[in-house]
Amino acid sequence: MEPKLVSHSTTVVTDLVLPGETNPLNNLFGGELLARMDRAASIAARRHSRRVCVTASVNHVAFNRPIPLGSVVTLEAKISRAFKSSMEVYIDVWIEDRESGIKNRANEAIYTFVAVDETGHPVEVPGIITETILEKERYEAALRRKQLSLVLAGKMNPSDATELKALFK
Amino acid sequence: MEPKLVSHSTTVVTDLVLPGETNPLNNLFGGELLARMDRAASIAARRHSRRVCVTASVNHVAFNRPIPLGSVVTLEAKISRAFKSSMEVYIDVWIEDRESGIKNRANEAIYTFVAVDETGHPVEVPGIITETILEKERYEAALRRKQLSLVLAGKMNPSDATELKALFK
Amino acid sequence: MEPKLVSHSTTVVTDLVLPGETNPLNNLFGGELLARMDRAASIAARRHSRRVCVTASVNHVAFNRPIPLGSVVTLEAKISRAFKSSMEVYIDVWIEDRESGIKNRANEAIYTFVAVDETGHPVEVPGIITETILEKERYEAALRRKQLSLVLAGKMNPSDATELKALFK
Amino acid sequence: MEPKLVSHSTTVVTDLVLPGETNPLNNLFGGELLARMDRAASIAARRHSRRVCVTASVNHVAFNRPIPLGSVVTLEAKISRAFKSSMEVYIDVWIEDRESGIKNRANEAIYTFVAVDETGHPVEVPGIITETILEKERYEAALRRKQLSLVLAGKMNPSDATELKALFK
Amino acid sequence: MEPKLVSHSTTVVTDLVLPGETNPLNNLFGGELLARMDRAASIAARRHSRRVCVTASVNHVAFNRPIPLGSVVTLEAKISRAFKSSMEVYIDVWIEDRESGIKNRANEAIYTFVAVDETGHPVEVPGIITETILEKERYEAALRRKQLSLVLAGKMNPSDATELKALFK
Amino acid sequence: MEPKLVSHSTTVVTDLVLPGETNPLNNLFGGELLARMDRAASIAARRHSRRVCVTASVNHVAFNRPIPLGSVVTLEAKISRAFKSSMEVYIDVWIEDRESGIKNRANEAIYTFVAVDETGHPVEVPGIITETILEKERYEAALRRKQLSLVLAGKMNPSDATELKALFK
Repeated sequence: MEPKLVSHSTTVVTDLVLPGETNPLNNLFGGELLARMDRAASIAARRHSRRVCVTASVNHVAFNRPIPLGSVVTLEAKISRAFKSSMEVYIDVWIEDRESGIKNRANEAIYTFVAVDETGHPVEVPGIITETILEKERYEAALRRKQLSLVLAGKMNPSDATELKALFK
Repeated sequence: MEPKLVSHSTTVVTDLVLPGETNPLNNLFGGELLARMDRAASIAARRHSRRVCVTASVNHVAFNRPIPLGSVVTLEAKISRAFKSSMEVYIDVWIEDRESGIKNRANEAIYTFVAVDETGHPVEVPGIITETILEKERYEAALRRKQLSLVLAGKMNPSDATELKALFK
Repeated sequence: MEPKLVSHSTTVVTDLVLPGETNPLNNLFGGELLARMDRAASIAARRHSRRVCVTASVNHVAFNRPIPLGSVVTLEAKISRAFKSSMEVYIDVWIEDRESGIKNRANEAIYTFVAVDETGHPVEVPGIITETILEKERYEAALRRKQLSLVLAGKMNPSDATELKALFK
Repeated sequence: MEPKLVSHSTTVVTDLVLPGETNPLNNLFGGELLARMDRAASIAARRHSRRVCVTASVNHVAFNRPIPLGSVVTLEAKISRAFKSSMEVYIDVWIEDRESGIKNRANEAIYTFVAVDETGHPVEVPGIITETILEKERYEAALRRKQLSLVLAGKMNPSDATELKALFK
Repeated sequence: MEPKLVSHSTTVVTDLVLPGETNPLNNLFGGELLARMDRAASIAARRHSRRVCVTASVNHVAFNRPIPLGSVVTLEAKISRAFKSSMEVYIDVWIEDRESGIKNRANEAIYTFVAVDETGHPVEVPGIITETILEKERYEAALRRKQLSLVLAGKMNPSDATELKALFK
Repeated sequence: MEPKLVSHSTTVVTDLVLPGETNPLNNLFGGELLARMDRAASIAARRHSRRVCVTASVNHVAFNRPIPLGSVVTLEAKISRAFKSSMEVYIDVWIEDRESGIKNRANEAIYTFVAVDETGHPVEVPGIITETILEKERYEAALRRKQLSLVLAGKMNPSDATELKALFK
């Protein structure tokens, strides 16, 4: 299976915040944003693997700034690292100022998807080729996150998590 | 007001077709597609004008092929021509084959938006600069469509619609 | 196949504008109105043809006035002309003033539907019998719109569009 | 305040049953039907009173037959009787067979609405004039239902419910 | 079939009121509340019967107080009485004050569900065992409501409705 | 500010999986589950703090098993640890088998909320009192998760994350 470029899976979703999608503070409702990111990330996973993909976990989502009613929101999802049958997907969220057109980073999120066959069993996915510095950084960090996730789930001995241990030396 | 490139307003929306968005034939429900195109087109109009924009008309939407449940759908909206305070927005819709990754054209649509100020009154918008052949073709055709729309609404005398008349000579 | 009266297909939809269906200006969101009109028009097409009907195109929608939150909106859809297997559906939209009860015209739209069999192939539909002056006017104009649509799609030579040409003489 | 005809408030809502509105048996989800009837009934109450109206109670809804996916459903709501500031609204629900066009009664429901002013206080509403036999029957029965509702709520002594008592003599 | 405790079927649903679920007065839209109660009640009926259950009727819903935007709403549904194949479900609705945490009763509703097999035919359900005084009261009243419902539907002779007649003696 | 029991904030949400909430594999759509958990968790945070609470981050969500169409799903959200103005909320998700009534664990998730005043500024929240062994375990782990989150965000020096370091010694 030939590895693919990160850019191959890049998925862009541009959308509005309408009144029916807000919380009582008139900002985009958190649950709605989580759902939109899940849709975008699943498309990126599918573009990389050409398979049906299901959400395995949400590893980290930081809601750094509220997204007000009427905003234009852009989500950009791409594979940060592929493992045997799972893929880590990184989602960046920007808000666009209407008058200046300037985009500000509002949130970021990391989801993991698994590619499955018709019977729902995991299938192998292609590897990933990084090009930019940011892609490489995220690729490296993805392994630490995976080890961490295994350690926290009790599926890996902390002493075997070499990448992670290095961080706390 | 400085004119802007067509590419400046390009808005990409990538999304799935989930069961709650289908018609009884298990294809994307037509009304849902119309709503998604309206959201995408209004963002393109806003990016060009940096103003609040409201839908003025839907001039043409061709539903050439049904979009089945589970598809990845990509909408690309961009300004095709700017008039005094109105903008014609062209939306191209593609379906992406999961296995081959090939994108096929499913639909196209033309919407018109008007830029308004806080009191809802129309305000002037920048002109448009075309670069590609397709952009130029759509730019030319936009004037004929505008004349046509004025003629059909009884707001222009057919004999004054010079671009249109040329077509039927 | 016996032709049917226009009134046979008339479909009335009365509904509210709730907060979850508005745009940031507190008016009915354009995309939501397009979806409601599509539902109403598809019922009119089905009543005329007694077949499953799919949206073929949206030919013209004019958003003449915004529909504010809390409005009562009435949609009336009816067949304006039947062709071999397609039907043009005309939709009139009214807003009703709560205090006076007076209905004002807000929008109008023209959709085209195609009747299909179980395998999705077009099937013949009955002709239409017009009764009122308005029905007759719309019936006549429907042919010009069809020619126009064929000319714009490059499927008809402008010189063959006799009804249309007459308009620009 | 001049009384009004029942027909003055008649509100017709024609709609489809799409996949996103069904229960796991592929019939219209009961909660969705209750919501649609509430929308229709509130419009009828508003047309009669020319006031903002709020749901006071749902007195009776019988789900006599399931409404399958893909059906055309027609709701017809009208005032059956007006009291001081409240109105009983009767809603009849029909399913329309696609091939024969025949409408069958699927459900009926009785809701009560109260007309309120800007501060939310109840205001008087016009009386009702019945014309048909069915309208008269429902008008009579409405009083028994009101008494019943007061008795069950402990707000009326059963011995004062003369209309109701007559029924059980 | 062994009878079950009322508490066995108790179903708790805690939820928010977001802007997309309100009416133009900024309170929870009545239709949305009816739909939420239907979902809760159908789960209670299913927990009691271990069967697929469908809504048979809504017998009584009193909207005693509006539920404002941003509220926390708690629904508690439980079987009040089981008949041959039908179950009466009682739903209590509370609003929770954010600052004091005090819960106030907003509404109550009574729905009836029928348990069905795979072919949609009614099947027998277990009896119910009441424990508290409130459970016993509601159990008694359920029979009167059933008789009433049969009388109003013309399926029972008023003179045979012994429990009901006692009320009006 | 007096500390509160974990059980004080416990929030139970019981709900169905209807067709409009599924993915193309007929299981509950991941994004919809994320949204439901966000609603439940925000209520738990609000019950603990008696304040308006906004989602700060989603720290971990494991989708261990798909939740099929027609399932009854129970979410239970409770505060696992309170910090200065933030609260970690733990959400357990169960699926209930219709026939046996047995509940199986499907997912778990950890969200962080911040309590804010009217101007959106963080305000202090009460401490938490744990009672059960599970509550104590989650309380301890919450500190490690917080340190981890600060380290990953570059806001804490790994060598200062004493609880975390202990794990990798």
